[in-house]
Amino acid sequence: LREEAEMDRPNEATPDVGIIMGSDSDLATMAGGKGKRPGAYAALAEELGFAEQTDFTDAPEARFTFESFVVSAHRTPELMYAYAETAEARGLDVVIAGAGGKSADLPNMTASIAYPLPVIGVPVQEKSVDSVIGMPQGAPITAVDAGKSFNAALTAVQVLSRKHPELRERLQAYHDELQNEVGTVSRDLHE
Amino acid sequence: LREEAEMDRPNEATPDVGIIMGSDSDLATMAGGKGKRPGAYAALAEELGFAEQTDFTDAPEARFTFESFVVSAHRTPELMYAYAETAEARGLDVVIAGAGGKSADLPNMTASIAYPLPVIGVPVQEKSVDSVIGMPQGAPITAVDAGKSFNAALTAVQVLSRKHPELRERLQAYHDELQNEVGTVSRDLHE
Amino acid sequence: LREEAEMDRPNEATPDVGIIMGSDSDLATMAGGKGKRPGAYAALAEELGFAEQTDFTDAPEARFTFESFVVSAHRTPELMYAYAETAEARGLDVVIAGAGGKSADLPNMTASIAYPLPVIGVPVQEKSVDSVIGMPQGAPITAVDAGKSFNAALTAVQVLSRKHPELRERLQAYHDELQNEVGTVSRDLHE
Amino acid sequence: LREEAEMDRPNEATPDVGIIMGSDSDLATMAGGKGKRPGAYAALAEELGFAEQTDFTDAPEARFTFESFVVSAHRTPELMYAYAETAEARGLDVVIAGAGGKSADLPNMTASIAYPLPVIGVPVQEKSVDSVIGMPQGAPITAVDAGKSFNAALTAVQVLSRKHPELRERLQAYHDELQNEVGTVSRDLHE
Amino acid sequence: LREEAEMDRPNEATPDVGIIMGSDSDLATMAGGKGKRPGAYAALAEELGFAEQTDFTDAPEARFTFESFVVSAHRTPELMYAYAETAEARGLDVVIAGAGGKSADLPNMTASIAYPLPVIGVPVQEKSVDSVIGMPQGAPITAVDAGKSFNAALTAVQVLSRKHPELRERLQAYHDELQNEVGTVSRDLHE
Amino acid sequence: LREEAEMDRPNEATPDVGIIMGSDSDLATMAGGKGKRPGAYAALAEELGFAEQTDFTDAPEARFTFESFVVSAHRTPELMYAYAETAEARGLDVVIAGAGGKSADLPNMTASIAYPLPVIGVPVQEKSVDSVIGMPQGAPITAVDAGKSFNAALTAVQVLSRKHPELRERLQAYHDELQNEVGTVSRDLHE
Amino acid sequence: LREEAEMDRPNEATPDVGIIMGSDSDLATMAGGKGKRPGAYAALAEELGFAEQTDFTDAPEARFTFESFVVSAHRTPELMYAYAETAEARGLDVVIAGAGGKSADLPNMTASIAYPLPVIGVPVQEKSVDSVIGMPQGAPITAVDAGKSFNAALTAVQVLSRKHPELRERLQAYHDELQNEVGTVSRDLHE
Amino acid sequence: LREEAEMDRPNEATPDVGIIMGSDSDLATMAGGKGKRPGAYAALAEELGFAEQTDFTDAPEARFTFESFVVSAHRTPELMYAYAETAEARGLDVVIAGAGGKSADLPNMTASIAYPLPVIGVPVQEKSVDSVIGMPQGAPITAVDAGKSFNAALTAVQVLSRKHPELRERLQAYHDELQNEVGTVSRDLHE
Repeated sequence: LREEAEMDRPNEATPDVGIIMGSDSDLATMAGGKGKRPGAYAALAEELGFAEQTDFTDAPEARFTFESFVVSAHRTPELMYAYAETAEARGLDVVIAGAGGKSADLPNMTASIAYPLPVIGVPVQEKSVDSVIGMPQGAPITAVDAGKSFNAALTAVQVLSRKHPELRERLQAYHDELQNEVGTVSRDLHE
Repeated sequence: LREEAEMDRPNEATPDVGIIMGSDSDLATMAGGKGKRPGAYAALAEELGFAEQTDFTDAPEARFTFESFVVSAHRTPELMYAYAETAEARGLDVVIAGAGGKSADLPNMTASIAYPLPVIGVPVQEKSVDSVIGMPQGAPITAVDAGKSFNAALTAVQVLSRKHPELRERLQAYHDELQNEVGTVSRDLHE
Repeated sequence: LREEAEMDRPNEATPDVGIIMGSDSDLATMAGGKGKRPGAYAALAEELGFAEQTDFTDAPEARFTFESFVVSAHRTPELMYAYAETAEARGLDVVIAGAGGKSADLPNMTASIAYPLPVIGVPVQEKSVDSVIGMPQGAPITAVDAGKSFNAALTAVQVLSRKHPELRERLQAYHDELQNEVGTVSRDLHE
Repeated sequence: LREEAEMDRPNEATPDVGIIMGSDSDLATMAGGKGKRPGAYAALAEELGFAEQTDFTDAPEARFTFESFVVSAHRTPELMYAYAETAEARGLDVVIAGAGGKSADLPNMTASIAYPLPVIGVPVQEKSVDSVIGMPQGAPITAVDAGKSFNAALTAVQVLSRKHPELRERLQAYHDELQNEVGTVSRDLHE
Repeated sequence: LREEAEMDRPNEATPDVGIIMGSDSDLATMAGGKGKRPGAYAALAEELGFAEQTDFTDAPEARFTFESFVVSAHRTPELMYAYAETAEARGLDVVIAGAGGKSADLPNMTASIAYPLPVIGVPVQEKSVDSVIGMPQGAPITAVDAGKSFNAALTAVQVLSRKHPELRERLQAYHDELQNEVGTVSRDLHE
Repeated sequence: LREEAEMDRPNEATPDVGIIMGSDSDLATMAGGKGKRPGAYAALAEELGFAEQTDFTDAPEARFTFESFVVSAHRTPELMYAYAETAEARGLDVVIAGAGGKSADLPNMTASIAYPLPVIGVPVQEKSVDSVIGMPQGAPITAVDAGKSFNAALTAVQVLSRKHPELRERLQAYHDELQNEVGTVSRDLHE
Repeated sequence: LREEAEMDRPNEATPDVGIIMGSDSDLATMAGGKGKRPGAYAALAEELGFAEQTDFTDAPEARFTFESFVVSAHRTPELMYAYAETAEARGLDVVIAGAGGKSADLPNMTASIAYPLPVIGVPVQEKSVDSVIGMPQGAPITAVDAGKSFNAALTAVQVLSRKHPELRERLQAYHDELQNEVGTVSRDLHE
Repeated sequence: LREEAEMDRPNEATPDVGIIMGSDSDLATMAGGKGKRPGAYAALAEELGFAEQTDFTDAPEARFTFESFVVSAHRTPELMYAYAETAEARGLDVVIAGAGGKSADLPNMTASIAYPLPVIGVPVQEKSVDSVIGMPQGAPITAVDAGKSFNAALTAVQVLSRKHPELRERLQAYHDELQNEVGTVSRDLHE
């Protein structure tokens, strides 16, 4: 698997945001889905115009893209290591890492190995918060609230928007829309 | 106070990182100090070469700077509002907002009002974590572990380093030093 | 939105109790509804003879009235600010503010901005209690138990009853009825 | 003890706010004191111009007054009952009831018996919050954060200020002072 | 209601165990029922040969009996007071008091007022445990685990068995039966 | 050790209350002592006239007595077994069993083995409560609040008082004294 | 029952792993089953080639075997005692002990009595973790996460594998398979 | 560092137990020390006759030995990886891994990478328990109670004792001594 990761390096049209998770049972939280609130995929693809990149030799046309991987810290430690070590070289600017259960080793280890790339942890369950957030001094990670991969995606784009003003505008447009919805709801109460 | 904030706008040599906190009792956590672990000030000023900017008409010579303010969400809501609303216009790229107690309104409200500027929350106490992190969908904030303003500063610089490669190198240099220390400690155990 | 709030000010026949909440998903808790225990609406409208006022230029005939708004601290901070700042001038005597999630900024910020108007916080979920209640010294708020907007309404009327003896009697009448029900239940056990 | 309570009834110049607590070990929290943050006494006597009334036949000259009692729900249930039952008749407009430990029966029972008088519970310890706040539907009580009897006093005066505009002004004056302090602290950071 | 309680006093054939609860929603836990584990009624009536006494002038023939009441500490404080005050005089030897929610005032207040009669608290929900158990020094109560009114009944009979050897034997017989069941289950695993 | 326990059986003048604990570090909680609140020893010996019996062949003259043992469920399981199995035969009417830590096996196992003797558990630390109280259906134990061995002793005497009216009077006398103290404290507040 | 346990001693072809649990309601967790994740049975029988031994005079042909028993610490303390005391003599090398509820006496007592045999505790519910793990110094036990009897079985075989290299290989084979599954899942995401 | 680890492989007289921890601040818990309860070092070196091996080319004469390392999962991920990967080849039979904070990545990752070597996690603080224990199915680890590295060492020796009967006897001797101490304490109470 390490070779596969390294092979990707020369690839020019690389994804900007990497989304990783520990098992496919985290997919509903990370990507959103039936009976779940919208996730990071919805934020990126539907609200902010990102495209998912699934083949590293054939990038989508969209200016901004993301990729997603299932890598288990405990069942496939080598894969996790390889992913984190090559993340920056493969062109990623931010990594969003989800973890369920009480031992959130995936976001933690990825943040340590991919350093100085910023990593945003997504605790998949309420009980995952402490473990995602609890890194020692000198080993930075930040986290969003349990289950809110949607907001992790917004933050990832906030980071990117510091050098891509066009993303700043997309974020603003999304927010304006959101405010209009609240206004509508409040107005409905009075009719 | 709003006028003061607005007056700052035309200022060219602006701080890159804003550090705000709810009261001066949070200062020990945010800046570090006697009997406290090193804080955000130590990370920025001692490890990563930032200068503190205290006068907005007279910027320090250092290429990267930070500022700090005490603004209380509950005792001075107007000041908080003014700070958050003008933050991006005043040239900040990231805000680090600390909050103690169980109602972390300062990081939360600042993140909402300063949006789309990225805001990193620092729960000053263990019991502040839930409130800092618990924002609804569509209102992004990320947080570090309780009391770890040092790591918040590292993350803030990770964000800046996406467009300033020179900061990326400073982060790397800091980390190399850190690893050497662990090596020394382990070696000491065997002598 | 601020203009709308200000426009209301000269209105003479104003509501006595304001009920606000962060999103329409809190409506079931604040107003009661299918599969939910009775809420603040039931207490005010059914037990204590209040009327809901939905149009500020055309007040209901009832002597005591309440109004309700959806205002989000994080998605519509300006609206929240405007509501809280004009609350007393618009004739309100008490505000009941509901908040779900772990960051109860709506009751907290409203209490700070609407001060010295009394604000009663309603934690919509068990996990909202800490955040609603945790205000610093000098920034008063009181709270009821999670989900009990019904009791928040009773307390609001207790406050009003200090200057309107007729409300004191309505509260007493409601309580007498309640005691009779307990008596009936206990008697049923012995038959 | 009941006779003593009843004897007080005809007394005209009665206290406006009653402060009760379960044992003298709660006094530091309720009144403030050495090594403790300021309590309800400080808020009422120092910030808002209330006088303490200790002799019911000889009222102080101040327009607004408070009284304080130690009554234990578990060791002196009759005294608690008598106090709560006669509270309104004795001229009180609000009761502030503190309780430590995990069984906050004093605020709870007082609120039930003194109904419809508003009762503000003060959990003396963090672990008292749940019990103070957890009343069933139909039995209203509101609470402040653990240990914050100072804020309970502010809320009590907010309630009184609904019919005494002069108290509204005192509350406003206290707040203005508070804001100035925050401003001073923030300014000090920049010098 | 107080008169009714007093009228019962001269009654000779009195119940030995009193079961009280705060509302009829606690009945399923205290008495057992559909979809619930067996409760105190099942323990007393089915396992240990007690009869329920519902009419105080016409006692059942069984040597040992229990009674049950719904009394709400918050909605009917007078009734609770009357029940606790007359409990010993009415011939009870132990009281089992159930309470749901976070404010377990019924067991607490009953234990204080009925003292020195032993009172066994039954927290109806997990969150009721702290409040039931948390009495101050000098105000004794003991409690069983959340929801286990069945065990409270066993303990009540353990207390009675100290002076009624015949109850000691019934307890022993119940236990022998229980052990046989475990043996059967274990044996089934090997077939 | 088992022989020693059995040897005690014929002893006529036996203790009424047995106090056991898992290690001598629990002694401060169970017996009271310097810097600790009064414990079970103080309740029995100072308030209720019990004598401690330390030699089983030479009973003290007092009518009511207690004994105390250190038996560890984990380090001396045989001793615990022997103590519990012979407790009733040795003349005990109630056992008070203290346990610290998170695994309160001593009260639990003693209650199961000494059955049908009533056992009152004393959680030595807050974190011991769940484990002391959490017995399955059919295995009764009751518990007091963490650290309150004083109240456990009161309850033990409540149980004994069901057949010894003289103990009922001692309990009542203790309580009257307690009420007078509260009265004194409250009166002091007004002078 | 003790005789039955002792009778087994001379038996030569003895089980290597003993699985015990407190009641048949724990069976779903310990053995796995409908609607439950795979348990210790699945790990041993399906993944690692162990056979279940149900008759002690007629061992299965498999080289490695396990047995299972239901023994209740509270309802059948003698049986538990007998099982633990004879475990090592009966040929067991590791015991896996499950316990639900808040008082995990079965794993704890078994570890103490069967010492120096290693015992692995399985908390059947989240709330059982503290009690299973909380043994005092000198009384060793280790535990897996709540409900993960599957992992307890893996650990038991890790222990056995220290002297049986063939088991080490089976563990390795199981793990290789697991890694392949993760690879498959990740690859599926990209198609 | 990896070369150093690999260089050790051919070394014949290898340590049996490896003790690792994340930072030197964990040393007090893992090794014991001033003001701390005895740790794993005390158990191994003082109670069970192990020698510490600090130079891999010059083994101590004792038959059983242990080594200790400081390796940080977050600051030196490569070192951790190298240690875990070579642990079995270097001759270790059990690893004891301590971790403080809320993200116990060191024990978790070591268990995953060193698999199928058994790893015993030691949560250095109470808040580390969840994270140490919370591994997913298929990734075994067991843990002792917070801070109890002494017991982890006992368990490690229990594992080794399965193939070294002489260690079984040392464990038994330690336990006999422990029981005598409890006996002494209990006897002291009666004098």
